[in-house]
This record gives sequence, C-alpha cells and structure tokens, in this order.
Amino acid sequence: LATILALASLAHGGSNGLGQTPQMGWSTWNAYGCEIDADIIIESAKQLADQMKPFGYEYLNIDDCWQAAERNAQGVLEANKTRFPDGLKAVVDQIHDLGLKAGIYSSAGTMTCGRKIGSLDHEETDAQSWADAGFDYLKYDNCFAQGRSGTPQFSYDRYNKMATALNNTGRPIFYSLCNWGEDGPWNFASTIANSWRISGDITNSFNREDDRCPCTSVVEGDCNTQGYHCSVEKIANFAAPLGQKAAPGGWNDLDSLEVGVSVGEGLTLDESVTHFTLWSMMKSPLIQGPVFADLSSQDRAVLTNEHVIAINQDPGSTPAIRLQSGKQQVWQSTLSNDSYAVALVNFGESKWDVELPLSEVFFDDRKLAKASWTAYDLWSDTDFQNPPRKPGQSKLQGMSVQGKL
Amino acid sequence: LATILALASLAHGGSNGLGQTPQMGWSTWNAYGCEIDADIIIESAKQLADQMKPFGYEYLNIDDCWQAAERNAQGVLEANKTRFPDGLKAVVDQIHDLGLKAGIYSSAGTMTCGRKIGSLDHEETDAQSWADAGFDYLKYDNCFAQGRSGTPQFSYDRYNKMATALNNTGRPIFYSLCNWGEDGPWNFASTIANSWRISGDITNSFNREDDRCPCTSVVEGDCNTQGYHCSVEKIANFAAPLGQKAAPGGWNDLDSLEVGVSVGEGLTLDESVTHFTLWSMMKSPLIQGPVFADLSSQDRAVLTNEHVIAINQDPGSTPAIRLQSGKQQVWQSTLSNDSYAVALVNFGESKWDVELPLSEVFFDDRKLAKASWTAYDLWSDTDFQNPPRKPGQSKLQGMSVQGKL
Amino acid sequence: LATILALASLAHGGSNGLGQTPQMGWSTWNAYGCEIDADIIIESAKQLADQMKPFGYEYLNIDDCWQAAERNAQGVLEANKTRFPDGLKAVVDQIHDLGLKAGIYSSAGTMTCGRKIGSLDHEETDAQSWADAGFDYLKYDNCFAQGRSGTPQFSYDRYNKMATALNNTGRPIFYSLCNWGEDGPWNFASTIANSWRISGDITNSFNREDDRCPCTSVVEGDCNTQGYHCSVEKIANFAAPLGQKAAPGGWNDLDSLEVGVSVGEGLTLDESVTHFTLWSMMKSPLIQGPVFADLSSQDRAVLTNEHVIAINQDPGSTPAIRLQSGKQQVWQSTLSNDSYAVALVNFGESKWDVELPLSEVFFDDRKLAKASWTAYDLWSDTDFQNPPRKPGQSKLQGMSVQGKL
Amino acid sequence: LATILALASLAHGGSNGLGQTPQMGWSTWNAYGCEIDADIIIESAKQLADQMKPFGYEYLNIDDCWQAAERNAQGVLEANKTRFPDGLKAVVDQIHDLGLKAGIYSSAGTMTCGRKIGSLDHEETDAQSWADAGFDYLKYDNCFAQGRSGTPQFSYDRYNKMATALNNTGRPIFYSLCNWGEDGPWNFASTIANSWRISGDITNSFNREDDRCPCTSVVEGDCNTQGYHCSVEKIANFAAPLGQKAAPGGWNDLDSLEVGVSVGEGLTLDESVTHFTLWSMMKSPLIQGPVFADLSSQDRAVLTNEHVIAINQDPGSTPAIRLQSGKQQVWQSTLSNDSYAVALVNFGESKWDVELPLSEVFFDDRKLAKASWTAYDLWSDTDFQNPPRKPGQSKLQGMSVQGKL
Repeated sequence: LATILALASLAHGGSNGLGQTPQMGWSTWNAYGCEIDADIIIESAKQLADQMKPFGYEYLNIDDCWQAAERNAQGVLEANKTRFPDGLKAVVDQIHDLGLKAGIYSSAGTMTCGRKIGSLDHEETDAQSWADAGFDYLKYDNCFAQGRSGTPQFSYDRYNKMATALNNTGRPIFYSLCNWGEDGPWNFASTIANSWRISGDITNSFNREDDRCPCTSVVEGDCNTQGYHCSVEKIANFAAPLGQKAAPGGWNDLDSLEVGVSVGEGLTLDESVTHFTLWSMMKSPLIQGPVFADLSSQDRAVLTNEHVIAINQDPGSTPAIRLQSGKQQVWQSTLSNDSYAVALVNFGESKWDVELPLSEVFFDDRKLAKASWTAYDLWSDTDFQNPPRKPGQSKLQGMSVQGKL
Repeated sequence: LATILALASLAHGGSNGLGQTPQMGWSTWNAYGCEIDADIIIESAKQLADQMKPFGYEYLNIDDCWQAAERNAQGVLEANKTRFPDGLKAVVDQIHDLGLKAGIYSSAGTMTCGRKIGSLDHEETDAQSWADAGFDYLKYDNCFAQGRSGTPQFSYDRYNKMATALNNTGRPIFYSLCNWGEDGPWNFASTIANSWRISGDITNSFNREDDRCPCTSVVEGDCNTQGYHCSVEKIANFAAPLGQKAAPGGWNDLDSLEVGVSVGEGLTLDESVTHFTLWSMMKSPLIQGPVFADLSSQDRAVLTNEHVIAINQDPGSTPAIRLQSGKQQVWQSTLSNDSYAVALVNFGESKWDVELPLSEVFFDDRKLAKASWTAYDLWSDTDFQNPPRKPGQSKLQGMSVQGKL
Repeated sequence: LATILALASLAHGGSNGLGQTPQMGWSTWNAYGCEIDADIIIESAKQLADQMKPFGYEYLNIDDCWQAAERNAQGVLEANKTRFPDGLKAVVDQIHDLGLKAGIYSSAGTMTCGRKIGSLDHEETDAQSWADAGFDYLKYDNCFAQGRSGTPQFSYDRYNKMATALNNTGRPIFYSLCNWGEDGPWNFASTIANSWRISGDITNSFNREDDRCPCTSVVEGDCNTQGYHCSVEKIANFAAPLGQKAAPGGWNDLDSLEVGVSVGEGLTLDESVTHFTLWSMMKSPLIQGPVFADLSSQDRAVLTNEHVIAINQDPGSTPAIRLQSGKQQVWQSTLSNDSYAVALVNFGESKWDVELPLSEVFFDDRKLAKASWTAYDLWSDTDFQNPPRKPGQSKLQGMSVQGKL
Repeated sequence: LATILALASLAHGGSNGLGQTPQMGWSTWNAYGCEIDADIIIESAKQLADQMKPFGYEYLNIDDCWQAAERNAQGVLEANKTRFPDGLKAVVDQIHDLGLKAGIYSSAGTMTCGRKIGSLDHEETDAQSWADAGFDYLKYDNCFAQGRSGTPQFSYDRYNKMATALNNTGRPIFYSLCNWGEDGPWNFASTIANSWRISGDITNSFNREDDRCPCTSVVEGDCNTQGYHCSVEKIANFAAPLGQKAAPGGWNDLDSLEVGVSVGEGLTLDESVTHFTLWSMMKSPLIQGPVFADLSSQDRAVLTNEHVIAINQDPGSTPAIRLQSGKQQVWQSTLSNDSYAVALVNFGESKWDVELPLSEVFFDDRKLAKASWTAYDLWSDTDFQNPPRKPGQSKLQGMSVQGKL
C-alpha cells in the first residue's frame, strides 16, 4: 500500500494517469451558452464524432446550465428535468456509443458562473454522481468561491478537495481546473489537475485591448480580477513564461478555441491560423466551440490541420518558448525526432519584414544553428494561399535535420 | 429544509432578496458629517420624501456618529441620548411613515471611521438591535479592523459574520458593504452583500489627482491604502473593469453622489452631468448627499433626470462597459428592449472633436453596427443647453432600433 | 467593567492614553550604535535635559545592544553587566531625576537587528521587566520575525502580543512600533500603538537613490524588503498619502532626525531645514540622534526652532497634505486657530521659480482662497539668511487670518 | 537548558554554526543533470579534490536524480540501486576520504524538480537517512510544494520543518534553502538556513532577456513564477538590494557558477570574469558546475583567481553594494584591514568611457574619499590581458590605504 501511495503521489497532473497529451474536444458553451439540452448535445456529438474525431477531438463537454434548480432530497445535484428528460446518464451513454468521451461542468463555489448550483462543500457527492453517470471529464470553474483564495494554499485546498473526490470515485476523470490563473495554478495544481486555465476568458478578438480583461500579467502584480474578453494576443503574452510548468499529465489551458465561433468581433482567417498555431505549439488543450452546421470550410481546415495538431499531440514536444516578444513575435517548439517548429506571429498593425537567422532560432545551441535544415510550411496545404507577413498573420515552419517531421 | 437552504445559498447579493436594482437614497454624511440629530434627520426625510422619492430615492440613511459613547449594561449599542432623545426607533418610525426606508451605519472594526463604537465581534447583538428598531439598510464600514484582512478569505470571514447576523434577524436588511475594495469584494462578497464599495472615498473633485487617494488600480498591485479624496475620474477608471461582477442582488458601489455637495472643490454643471451619467450607467447605487435647502435647481435637475435614472434602474440593463479609455472615453450600456446608451466623456483639459462610428460602438456585433438607430440626447430636456464637447463635459445618447427607449 | 473595557477599546493609538502629540526625544542609535553604556546614556541625558528639554524633547531612548548575551535562569532578559554594572533601573532612575522619560528597545523576533536576544514569544516577561525598571517607552523592531508576516492579520497578531503585554503591566508605556511599514501598520496598528514606522531606515542623505532602500511605494506593490539608506526625499514621498491615518494617540513615524548626525553623506543646512520642516508638518515623531558635543550651532538652531516644533505639537494641527508632487513640492498643514502652514520644497537639482496662488493652496475652499492672510517665514529668525529657492531648500510659511499664529 | 536554547536561537543562519563564509564546491547538475551515478560522482570528486580544493572548493554536491523510484517498506528514501549499487554511504565515505564534504538534494514538495520523490511531510525520516549516510550539506528545492506558500509564514513553516529535522539529527548539515526567492527567504529564513536562493535558475547567458525568467523584481510585485534561464545580469540586478540581509551563517545564493559550463548560450571570457567578480563580491556561494575534463585553462583561471576568492571568503568583508545601476554599474565591497574592492561592470552593448572619482566610491565617507589609495587590478595576473572597457567586461580593483590587501 505504501508503495502504491508513493507512486500515486509522484504523478504530475494528478494520479489519474490522464492527459499524457493535451485534451482535444468540443464544448457546448461558445455555441449554445446556457441554452443546452439533450438533443443539442447528442446532435453535436454526432457531428463531432463524424467530422472531428478523426483528427483527435474526442471530448464532448457539457458546460454550464445542465443543473436542476435545487439538489434533491439526498443532496444530489441532478440534471434539469426539462432539458434532460432522461437524465445525464442516458446522454453520456449515447456519447460513449459514438466513440467519444463525455465531460461535465461545475464550479468550486456556491454557484456556477451561470448562477446555477455549485459544488463547493459538496465535492464527494457531486464527483460520485458524475462518475455514476459515466463522465470522463470535469471542467471545474471558480465563480462565487466565498473568498477561499488569495494564497496558493487557500486555492490548492479548495481545488484539491475535488481532485481527491474524483480520485475516490475510482473512475478516471480528466480534471480540467478553471480558476483563471488565480494564485498561480501552474505552481500549486500541477500534481492534482490535468490542465489549468491561466487567465480570464478568451473572446474571439485577435488583439483588442478590453477593460474587462484587466490584468497586465499573470505572474506579477497579484491581479484579483481575471475577467473575460481577453484577446488571442493577450492570452499568448500571458502564456509565454508558463510553458516550463506543463508536462505530460498537466497542461496550461489557454482557454477554448475561437476558430469558427460566430458571436462577437470575430477572427479573420489569418488570425484563426495564428490562434490555432499558438495554442497548438504551447500545448494548450484544443477545445473547439463552433456550431458545426455554421462552420466554414476555411475554419474547418484550420481546426483540422493535421501537421499543426501533430505538434500539439507529439508526446515528445515541449511547450513553445518565445524567442522574440512585442508586436512581432517568434516562437519555437522542440519536437520529437530532432525536429523543431518555428512560428512568426504579427500582432501589429503594420507589415513586418522579417529575416530570422538560424543563430537566433537556436541561440543557445551552436550545433543546431550550424546544421542544415529542411523546412516545411505547415499551413501550405490548407485551402488558402500562404500569404506574406501581413498584420494578423503568422507563418509556421517545421524544421527537421532528417528531412522529415 | 435542505431545499430552502440550497435555494438561499444560490442568491447573488445575499439571500435577502433585496437590491434587484441599485439602491437610491440620501445619506447624512456629506451634508452633516458627525453633526446629526433626530431633528435634522426627520427634516431631511421629509424633503427626501417630498422632492426625491417620486424619482426613486427611497432610503434615508443615518451615517456615522449616531452612537452612544459606550455600550449599555447588556452590551447593546444605543443611540446618543442627546442627539436622539427618543431613541432610534422613534426616528425610524417617522421615516417609515413618510413612505421611506431607513438606513443605519457601523464599521467592521473596533471603532467606526468617526471613532465611535464599532461592531466587530458584536455582530449578532448589533444586527438584532437594528432589526428591532426597524432599520432596512446597513452601511458597514472598514475602519479599525484589527488587521483582519489581506486575503479574500480574511475579509470574507469578517464581513460574512454581519451578513449572517442580519439574515438571522429575519428582517430583510439591505447590506451595503463598505470595505473600499480591499481584497476585491466584487469577488468574495457578491453572495453575501447587496452592494460593495470598490475604492476609497469620493470627493467632489472632477479629475484632480490627490495623494490621499493613492491607489493606481483596484485590480492589480495590492494597494493597502484606499484613502479618500478620490475624484470622479479616478473612481470611474477604477470601476471600468468591474461591471462584469455586478448583477441584480449585488452591485458595485462607486460611492455617493457629489452633485450639489457644497463642501470642497466642487463640480461644475457639466461635471455633475458626467458624474451622474457614469454612476447611472455603471449601475452604481445612487445615494445623494446635499443639504436640500441649498440644492440649486440645476443640480436638482441633474439628480432627477428620469431618463438617466431609468438606465440605472432598468431591470434589464447591464453595467456599462468602456469602449475607449484615456482622457476621452466612450461608454456603452445595454438596455432593455434592444436599446443602448452611449456616453462620450471628456476628462481632459482640451476640446475633443469626436466622431464615433457605429462600428466602434458595436464592435462585436456586425448586425447592430449596420442597423438603423434612433438616437436621443438624454440630457436635452434639462434646464441647460446641450453643450459642445468641452472639457469636463459628457454627452449621453440613448439609441433604439424601435424608435423608443 | 464592561464600560471600562468598551472605553479602552475605543482609543486610537492603544488604550494607554499616550501620544496625544508626536513624541520628542533622543535615541542612542545614530550617535553611538551598539557602543552604549550607562555613562554615555547618563551624560547624554544630562545634555538632553539641559539643552533640548526646554523645547519639548523629553524621551531618552536606549536603543539596541543593552542586552545581556542570554536570558537569566528565570527567563528574564537583563542588561549587559559590563555596560550597565548597576542594571537598567539605576539608569532609568537617573533619567527620571533629570525630568526626562526613559525608553528601551527590542525586536518582535528571535533576535534584534543588532543580533541580540529578541522578545518574540517572551512578550509578557520582557514587558514586565521593563515596567519594573521604570521605562516609559518601547521601540519594538522587526528583525528575525520567523516569517510571521505577509498579511495585516499575521503582523497585527505579532505586534498586538506586545501591546497587550505592555498594557497588562499597568504602567503607561509609549509603544513605538517599528515594522518598517510592512503590511501597512497605519491600518492595522492604529488601535494598539502610539506610533508606527512607515518605511525602511533613514540615512543622512537628502535625495540619493540607494539600492538598499528598494521599495518604490509603501501603499502598492507589496514590497518585502524595506531596507535602509532611505533618503529624506524618499521617505517624504512614502509618507505623502499616509497623513490621513494619524491622529492623537497614534502617529506615522518617518524615522529619526538626521539633523546633526555626522556619520554618512550628511545634510547641508538647507537640507536639514527641509527635513525638519517636513517631519514637523507631517506630525512625525521628532527623535534626534546627534552626539551633543559635536552639534553645530546651526543644526542646534534647526532642531530647536520653536515655530516649527509648534506645528508638530499643535494639538489641533493635522498631518500635512501634499498639494504638488514631483521634484518641486508644496505641502500644507491645517493648524489651530484658523491658521495654516505651507511649505515649498525643492528636491531637484535646479532652481525653482515658484509662484503659488492662494487658489492652489486652498483649492478646496473658496472662502479661504479669497481671504486676506498674514504670512510669516518660520525660519527667518534662525541664524542664517532666508535664501532663494535653491536646490535642497524649502520655505515654510505660516499663514493666519487673525494676524497671529 | 534554557540558556543553551536561548543561545541556539540567536544564530543567524540556523544554529548549526556552519556557513561562516559562503560555501564553495561543485554540483553534479550543470555537468550531468539527471545522468549521474556513483562512478561519475567519485571521478568528479577526485578532480575537485585535486584541482579545486586548494582554492577552497570543498563540497561535492549530489543534485537531483539519485533517488530510488519509491520509498522502501520503512518509508526511507534510498538511492537508485542501478546508479548507486553500494548505496549513498559508500559514495560519501569516498568523498570524505578525499578530504571533501558531501552534499545531497531534495525538494520541499511531493516531487523534486526532476520528478523524483520529494521530502515534503517526510522531513524527519529523510534528514536522518542523510545524516546516517554522512552527508554534510542539503540543497532543498521548491518544486511541487502543494501550494504551501504565498506568505512568509507558510514558506517558513515548510522550510523550518527540514531545518528542525536536520538539527535533530545531531550532525551539522549545511542547509542550502532553494525556494527561488519566493516570499523573501532573506527575511524569513536567515535564522534557519545557511544560504537561500534569491531568484529563478541561472543559465549561461550574460544578459539575454528570456520570457522563462519573468520576474522583474524580487522585492516588489509578488512574482509567482521565478522560472529559469535567468541571465547573469538579471540575477545581479535582483541581488543588488539584498546584501544587507546576508551575514556569517546565512548568505544570499545567486545560484551556481556558469563559468565553463558548455551547454547553452555560453559566456565569453570577459563575461565569465564579470560573473565571477560579482558573485564573489556579493558573497554568494561559489558552486561550480563544469565537466572538469572539458574545462579550458582560461575558465580554470577564472574559477581559481585567489584574489577574487579572497574577497568572497574574507571573514570581514561585506556583500557588495551597488553605487551605480543601469547597464554600466559600479559595485563596492568593504574588505578587512581597511581595504575595499570596486568593480566596474558593463552589461551594455556599447563601450563605456568611465571615470569614477573617489568622492563617488566613498560618497558617504569624506575621510575615505580624501585618502591616498593603492589600487590593484585583481584580474591582471590571469592568463589574459586586462582589456579596456568593452561590452561584457568588468574591471575589479582592490584598494587599500595600507598598500596591501
């Protein structure tokens, strides 16, 4: 027993063995918000299984607003009877039958962000009910936390209760911690969760500064209001120092993908390519959010670029580091097989004439800087021409000494 | 029972059901400071009932300095006998007879800010005595708190004691938490209070930087000295990211209105219009402070602009977001009935030639940006000419696709 | 009894009734550091009584290094036998016989800053031994605190133990808290201490930036290393927002006076005048540190300017507020009898041609701005000519509508 | 007993009596990382004893990855059997036989940074096993700490457990605390540890800004991600205010020496000289990391400059203070025998024409500024010419009034 416990305590990302690569899937939130029901979920699951599972997207995540208005007489939190007339288990079974995995949502607070019943101080009961229904995944939010934060200790204690409850069910349940980076979960949660959000909520804006995402850093300054309406650029800048904290079993979550999400400001194709490139290279979870019926072929091509997904899912790749910051950025990922990926990203408003010597790409390794490389444009086989370096664009190159990736 | 408790715990803004729209009223502090007595209060209540209640102002709030010098033999904190010879209940009864509600004041410390007896560690006793006297509202301050702060947890614990004590009385008492934004009450207090101050005390200055209000942000930097003499501009800037935290039941409190307050630097009419516009759009409580006998007709017109108050009290409106920051600002509120309010605010010292395309006002919704709008100047029917965009001015437009607001 | 306790709990600055005006005195530290003994102290006391007591300086404070190397068998911390052959009480008696009061020093840590035995977890024993010896004053430092800080709660708890211990002796002992501003003592300590340091240690430099005093603010940014070698300018800037927190019974301590202290960089006469002006106007304690035998007549004149001391000791004056910041500053104090003091301070390296309209001095009171004033130069009767506005200089004017101060 | 305890509690740097000067030695990490075994260690120890011990380097420190995959049945953490077939004690014995001291490594977390078993909540067991094996030194890291940080109190409690456990073994074991400066160990750990890291991990870059070392200050801003890839310049800037916190028994640890470390960007000879100069003057531990067989004669000359080492090990010298900051810096150390060391350091990219008057070097002591000095170039007897002030260079002068150092 002692041996088993010791081994269990050695896992990065909790002791459930999950998350060896970042999770991929689809969530109800961006497409449907609170307006979900069993039919929508099953229809979406079918499309996810049909169109996206071949590329690796496997989680169908039910986000907020599935809950009944009150706990039942036994204290169990059941699904809303109108929206889920047959209960959650029936939906989960159908998701499983499609070859997918099923995710659920709650908050480590008295209420969820959508003001439904939360799981704070009901961790054991709720974890068990989700395990009983067959769920494989929990996104655990941070609204209405009764002030139980402010030091890593307080936040760890609150989120560890659910980690323990999930483990106690005996069912492996992917634990997606979502406290918006408060108190630095990349430090305190890497032994208990499989991923952790690092910032306020993303919106589908490429680089708009928005008061509602007011933090200027997630590592300094003790921001107490992570907020929402964070742009792709802002979250990428937040994430730059944090790749060092991720590893198989536990990942930095840069929030869901805005590719093909129609509500809001919206991303151009170039911006979507940049967004997907960076999320993949930083080994963020890839959780989509479109209404499948409305997804353009261009956006579909972005979300299913196998070369880029391969970077994200490469068991031997490391989260990208940023070699150059500011409005024009250079990112580099180490891949398996002595290969590398390099992305040039233009968040600015002007054209960027970039020339990047290998001595900069491999500034800390002279051998690599002098090697002969074969470079591949990882976006060239999508259905759009590879453009010059315009505002909003990024270029992603895979480089290999072996001549293959 | 379990059901009832579960429901109770789901309330935003405490479980008392109050504060479905921001509170409106009048407080003794700005007009009279510590120099209050029963006569002043009853006379003010009469004027409030007569002049302001028709516009929605309903709370007559007794602020600091009502207390006796010591608790009585039973530990109860009674009113100062000289100032309130018949006790508080007699005053409250008269306030109620005028159709108003009555508010009282204390501090979550050993002393109030005016160095009278505070309620820290006497929460149950004091809440019961206020309920017994018939009070409907408590402003609960933060002076002399014995160091019980520094993390949301510590502040929550201290303020939750009074929330619980108020609820235990069985009387619905509006809970106006006033800890000056320390430890981020918009995060920790939204389930226990009906409003929470977000910053140090306001003064009647439009945009003067004053050392005594030293924080540069309320969301980053962990300021420990919220202070006072904060200008309208400074508090508006503090509030910009926080609208997302307010909802029916619990509101960001930008502090009382300085319109018509004669002590201090003072506001011009343009500045008063701007102040009232912003407080209304951000859905701040509207608590006035003038000596009614001294209130000019212009200031009275500002405080009673029904169009602007309607924005504040619209059950379907959301706290304004800021679209443009700096010295020249643009704010937008979503109103009921597919209508919107847009304010242009000039905090600078120079004239502002502004042209605001609809694509900026509705930057995240292309349909709205292309719709046809009817726009109303919500200040045009007051007794002053609608001016050009001078320093200190603001322009508030209501926009509706239906052609009415 | 309940009444007495209630009253006691209402005191600002502890319940000992002391500190109705800022303390004035002399400390051994700047002149002698660790090299103190009974003879030095008694000789200094004689000179303090003779030369300085007529101007209000009454405390003879024994700073660090009076301690024996270990506690005695009963756990009592006695004086070093070599330096104090007759013990502390004999010295205190002589200090008292000179009409002075006597101060002692310790640290709320395991060691003092001079690495002698500290009082942490020995509060009751040490407080009683100081009371037994007849001490009237304790400076309580912050070195080697075993990590018991980081929130106001932790610091309050540590320092409140000594406050309670001092009160329990029954002897009124002035409590000079010295935690260098950590966790904001102006917030948490104002009910338990008579003064509290706000920053790292002063050095006798007027405006030199020194890495060893690394904080850039005492109200924001959570500085963990208050340090030393803080200049007069830096501490004045730190103090600017904090005057609002001081009141009779508890004062912001800007650290001891460097006037006439010969070790280190040193102050010019102009700089000493500025230093003494600001400390007096901010109602800081005035604790001198020179070797009396080496004190120049000019420095003596600065330290004994009765007009300036009167501002500091005026029971009705309020800590100065700063009207203008930067390198050229304007400060204003409200004095008794409808009088005011205004100081113009030049921390810069260039000449300052200043013209200050009354509308700026009284920006928030139009009546005062339009009144007729009689102005006095409060430094004109010292033994140096009142100079123009050169670098390092300050000008201090007292203004009165009655024609007298 | 009380006396003994009192004395014990008075030690700076723990009560083990060690660390009267900064530790000197060699660690396995930079040369071998996780790929260590008994043979490598013993071979390295022989070379350390042979080549470096004459200059003062005495600790052979086994860093991470010595551990077995699990604790044994008694809960003891043994060495990896493959890498250490005869166990740790056999290796330690051979290290001791070479006249060296032996160091070991663990983390105050559930795992070490290399994801091996950590010592959190196993402090007594592990300390005893290291004492039993004869270790003289522990480097105690900060990975996977389960959120037990965020205030000095929390970090102190976690690290004090190991300090107590080490002391309880009865064996003097140098305690090298490595929490990357979190919560300010120079404040909370100086009574329990012999050295404490102040920042994220160093890399062998002279002045490259790297996102992975994201803190901008270690004294303000509450950085939660200390990271790695910190340059020599960045750590020197972090250290500048902290010299005041070090003293015999407890030292600021600026991290290991990168001189001669071949992995990574690398340092030029000028940069190595600067690095070694600053670490020595700041009285940082001097822990080398090269593969001895690959060490160039130039780098060897840097690491064994007796004049510079003498500054570091001078029992009477104080950690350097910085007189001038920015890209061109001036540092000064006070040495024994009325001597001083002055270093001019150029972190910039351009040539620096510097003239430094004695009045700046001794800005706070006019006597010294006017004295006659004999100056020595402490790098002139190495095997390279003393160069002009080029980018990356530093010049180190020893100055003495007696004409000798």
